[in-house]
Amino acid sequence: MLIIGEKLSIIARRVREAMNAWEAGPIQEIAKAQAQAGAGMIDANIGPAEDGGEELMQWMVRTIQEAVELPVCLDTTNQGAIEAGLKAHNNDYGTAMINSTSNDPERFGMLELAAKYNCRIIGLTVGKGGLPADEEERAAIAAEIMARAMEYGLGLENIYLDPLVLQIATTQEQAIKVIRAVRMFQELNDPPMNTVVGLSNISNGCPKHVRPILDRYLLALLMYEGLTAAIADPKEVVETVKTMEVLMGKTLYAHSYLEM
Amino acid sequence: MLIIGEKLSIIARRVREAMNAWEAGPIQEIAKAQAQAGAGMIDANIGPAEDGGEELMQWMVRTIQEAVELPVCLDTTNQGAIEAGLKAHNNDYGTAMINSTSNDPERFGMLELAAKYNCRIIGLTVGKGGLPADEEERAAIAAEIMARAMEYGLGLENIYLDPLVLQIATTQEQAIKVIRAVRMFQELNDPPMNTVVGLSNISNGCPKHVRPILDRYLLALLMYEGLTAAIADPKEVVETVKTMEVLMGKTLYAHSYLEM
Repeated sequence: MLIIGEKLSIIARRVREAMNAWEAGPIQEIAKAQAQAGAGMIDANIGPAEDGGEELMQWMVRTIQEAVELPVCLDTTNQGAIEAGLKAHNNDYGTAMINSTSNDPERFGMLELAAKYNCRIIGLTVGKGGLPADEEERAAIAAEIMARAMEYGLGLENIYLDPLVLQIATTQEQAIKVIRAVRMFQELNDPPMNTVVGLSNISNGCPKHVRPILDRYLLALLMYEGLTAAIADPKEVVETVKTMEVLMGKTLYAHSYLEM
Repeated sequence: MLIIGEKLSIIARRVREAMNAWEAGPIQEIAKAQAQAGAGMIDANIGPAEDGGEELMQWMVRTIQEAVELPVCLDTTNQGAIEAGLKAHNNDYGTAMINSTSNDPERFGMLELAAKYNCRIIGLTVGKGGLPADEEERAAIAAEIMARAMEYGLGLENIYLDPLVLQIATTQEQAIKVIRAVRMFQELNDPPMNTVVGLSNISNGCPKHVRPILDRYLLALLMYEGLTAAIADPKEVVETVKTMEVLMGKTLYAHSYLEM
């Protein structure tokens, strides 16, 4: 299980202020804390970044990789900023990931970039038509993204299909459909497709004490169905990941497995 | 999901002392606390109870049902004590459950008792031959128990098939087989068979701080596969049960769902 640390997001005030001031300290501190807690990749969410996105993403990638020997997940809708980030990325620490392409023509360019730089990319199973209704619709969109990737010459192992976790508070019936979609996505190819979720979407709008509980149990079910990766707070989910890997026999049980 | 409260067990010193002294106070206090925390049935484990088991089980059943309006799960290998408990049981609070029958001829009489009193019974999928190796062996034993029940005239809806949760510390590979068995058991009949586990067996022998974590995630996966009931500490698992029922769309989400 790959945990992609979600904490370096422009949505967080401390991160936004550090970005605005080109202050490496807080960025590197948060990156290190996430690596320490079990992240295998760091998400760098710089928002739409329409002005100066190239420079900002390059600085983010370099700043993060100076602090931790991990690959970065480049998170913005600004395609120029993505390409700048890919150029700055140190692949000795693992392949970068683009967050994200989808079935919206405006996002097709992201897939071309992934092919050009031979990196990983999240394939969000939404199109221009709005939110997918169920797991079948998600799988149909996934198949279109896969076909387009092959056209562009991107290997399918580089695609992480994302079923789009929705808020339980407003669209409760989607939770089980997202879980089923993760199973269906894997069956679209042999070897199975990689899958990823933005985990905390499930508890968006829920009371603060409820959020980690919903997140953790959803993650457990997704892992049971074969999920490859999750964008999440590593501190919040590391216990879930370790316990699930023990229950599913993927790591050997030891009395100290939670500490390892 | 039916939670069968496990705390009234002779293994606990406080319970054992109360049983020895015929002291209703502690028994009723523990029964009430479990009902309050979400138990829908109370397990009364009096051990082998070879001497005086009849009187003890009758007293336990009456003592518990004076305190809480719930059915009792009669837990002993002493068949006479089971029958005495069934006679004392107030079925206005729900049908009693016998814990348990199996594929061991010494436990066939339990099934006859269940038929005679038209009550529920746990069908542990073990035989004289020792522990089942995998889910297929568990399902084969389940089918034998079901055939025997029909012979005795016991309705299959009264049988709760138990895949026998084993210690992860010594038999890690069995955890996933137990989860799969719960799915397979349901497919043995239409409507699906009821299923039950002794949940905390999974973490037997594990460090104290690890136990509830393993128990909760195992329960989540079992519920995802359709588990009907669990013998467990209601305080420990109620958060898991409520969260799983929300994620699976079995209860409506509300911001206060954990408190309801």
